[in-house]
Amino acid sequence: MSRFTCVIPAGGAGSRLWPLSRANAPKFLLDLTGSGTSLLRTTWDRLTPLVPAERLMVVTGAAHRDSVVKQLPELLTENLVTETEPKDSSAAIGLAAALLELRDPEAILGSFAADHVIRGKVLFQRAVRTAVQAAEQGYIATIGIHPSFAATGFGYIACGAARPDIAPFDVYDVTEFVEKPNEETATAYLQTGGYLWNAGMFIAKASVLLDQMALAEPKMVASLREIAAAWETPQAAEVRERLWPSLPKVAIDYTVAEPAAEAGRMVCVAAHFEWDDVGDFASVANLLLRGRKGDLAVLGDGAQVLSDHSSGIVVSESDRLVALVGMEDVVVVDTADVLLVTSKRHAQDVKNLVNRMKGRGGKHLL
Amino acid sequence: MSRFTCVIPAGGAGSRLWPLSRANAPKFLLDLTGSGTSLLRTTWDRLTPLVPAERLMVVTGAAHRDSVVKQLPELLTENLVTETEPKDSSAAIGLAAALLELRDPEAILGSFAADHVIRGKVLFQRAVRTAVQAAEQGYIATIGIHPSFAATGFGYIACGAARPDIAPFDVYDVTEFVEKPNEETATAYLQTGGYLWNAGMFIAKASVLLDQMALAEPKMVASLREIAAAWETPQAAEVRERLWPSLPKVAIDYTVAEPAAEAGRMVCVAAHFEWDDVGDFASVANLLLRGRKGDLAVLGDGAQVLSDHSSGIVVSESDRLVALVGMEDVVVVDTADVLLVTSKRHAQDVKNLVNRMKGRGGKHLL
Repeated sequence: MSRFTCVIPAGGAGSRLWPLSRANAPKFLLDLTGSGTSLLRTTWDRLTPLVPAERLMVVTGAAHRDSVVKQLPELLTENLVTETEPKDSSAAIGLAAALLELRDPEAILGSFAADHVIRGKVLFQRAVRTAVQAAEQGYIATIGIHPSFAATGFGYIACGAARPDIAPFDVYDVTEFVEKPNEETATAYLQTGGYLWNAGMFIAKASVLLDQMALAEPKMVASLREIAAAWETPQAAEVRERLWPSLPKVAIDYTVAEPAAEAGRMVCVAAHFEWDDVGDFASVANLLLRGRKGDLAVLGDGAQVLSDHSSGIVVSESDRLVALVGMEDVVVVDTADVLLVTSKRHAQDVKNLVNRMKGRGGKHLL
Repeated sequence: MSRFTCVIPAGGAGSRLWPLSRANAPKFLLDLTGSGTSLLRTTWDRLTPLVPAERLMVVTGAAHRDSVVKQLPELLTENLVTETEPKDSSAAIGLAAALLELRDPEAILGSFAADHVIRGKVLFQRAVRTAVQAAEQGYIATIGIHPSFAATGFGYIACGAARPDIAPFDVYDVTEFVEKPNEETATAYLQTGGYLWNAGMFIAKASVLLDQMALAEPKMVASLREIAAAWETPQAAEVRERLWPSLPKVAIDYTVAEPAAEAGRMVCVAAHFEWDDVGDFASVANLLLRGRKGDLAVLGDGAQVLSDHSSGIVVSESDRLVALVGMEDVVVVDTADVLLVTSKRHAQDVKNLVNRMKGRGGKHLL
């Protein structure tokens, strides 16, 4: 564990959580659990029992630099990596890997999203430790979550043979990564077993991860290593400005996870902790209600709600009264300049609305 | 028509229209049709083609005196009758009748609610003229509306024999007044015919109306006539303060309309104009949409609405964006201190919520 560094890519606006999430208030800066702390801070606090603060790195947009520093005062300046423009997860995690590889050629990197919710710290820590063992042996490890229901909103990991050579329990070959299934397929996955939720966590030696990425995107990895080499020199800005804009926008799933699985270099640690990527307001409601169907979740410090035969979720940024009459599974998000009313069933469609607004002069509200 | 005075009782908060309607913004002061004028002003403008401004009288709560004067600058001071406390329609209309009876023993009074919506001015005027003819002959007349659908939200008038002795067309005996029916009964009324919507309009000689009321409430009518007699004397306030609080709260339907129908003194003018008492937000939506089902009505000067597969009504008092996703027949009322979300189906239940708030320290929001 002494060579292990946790990287937190803090990007992604979370447009399905609009109007709570905005360009200047991205999902990772929100408190979606009513805990009083942002998802980013909660992620940090989940990782510090595993590594000391100086081995936590955050990759985020330049625009969010100040917000991140405010949330994470312990974060070392050298571990705050800002992107001048968003380039998706391959570039973000790749740059972190290239920086860590220079500090220590044997460095192990674990990438954990800044905006997921996890419950079950001990199980999480145990899974990460096991994944680090796999990484030490040269594998690229991911952590898969045992499904608790037939989710159609997550991708899945198909597991193959157990790997007791890596750890006595819970480690399997990854046969393949599969996209979000339909209801029928998700139910089949749950019944047959052997399918885990893909939580998007990757643990590997920095050099192994980069070498794997280089097979798919050699030019990109060369650029990332060049940027990293210049990082603390007077040429840093010039090199970054020259190379970063040309990097392709591509998810690490395509440059690393899928090809590594195909090549037999990917293993999965199966874990039982609760996990959710909190992709939309239906997820937020479910998280807050913890399975109490027919109940109404309320998020917001000063939220005043009066409910008559209503269920779902009210998110309020004001202290004015929200009165609901006969609304089942409703989603009400009450912010200073936008009021959203939808249903849990349509929570995913909020993204369509956001896309429509982009082309309609509604950008100032996004 | 020269002895005809129109009385506009302007009372009733309209609690099913909360939070748009409030104690200090009762329904009759609202613009529920998007016309830019209040229901009270629209009522006034509907009546002035029938009578000159000096023969229009308004009965309202003392608290609304200034608002009424602002809406109706042409209203003569002597025709603005204020109640120190609300005593329902028998007292309000009875006091107007007692005042008019003193001015002219043969005065004819027509009572028209301040907060209904009517479309079809010419048909309305013709019906009122016919009703005045009946009143001249000593009858108490009402105007009934030919139903356009099987409404369960209105009371009905069962019509008997035609009365060509009063007017060649459209005048019938009233057999009885019936309460709001269920769906099945309303459908039967529509199919058999002979049932009209009770629009709560009464036209009669002031003295006839008072004498009829005196049969049911002799003490009340004596008090009203005593208050009226003292109205323009130095004793006015003393007499009113002594008598008004003791008056019973009872609707004119029970003291005049029903007993008069039973006694054969009530006739009905059947009319074809569009009429609605706009009792709840479902009615407001229907009025604005004029039958365009599946569409979204918007009420409010600066209202900004973005709708994705949604229908119903948005009422907004602000210019912030209201975004709807996948909400069918929704009712959203966005005011400065209260946001109401319900459905057209539950629009009547808003009253229950208002009642709950009364006992819960929510009075400042009512």
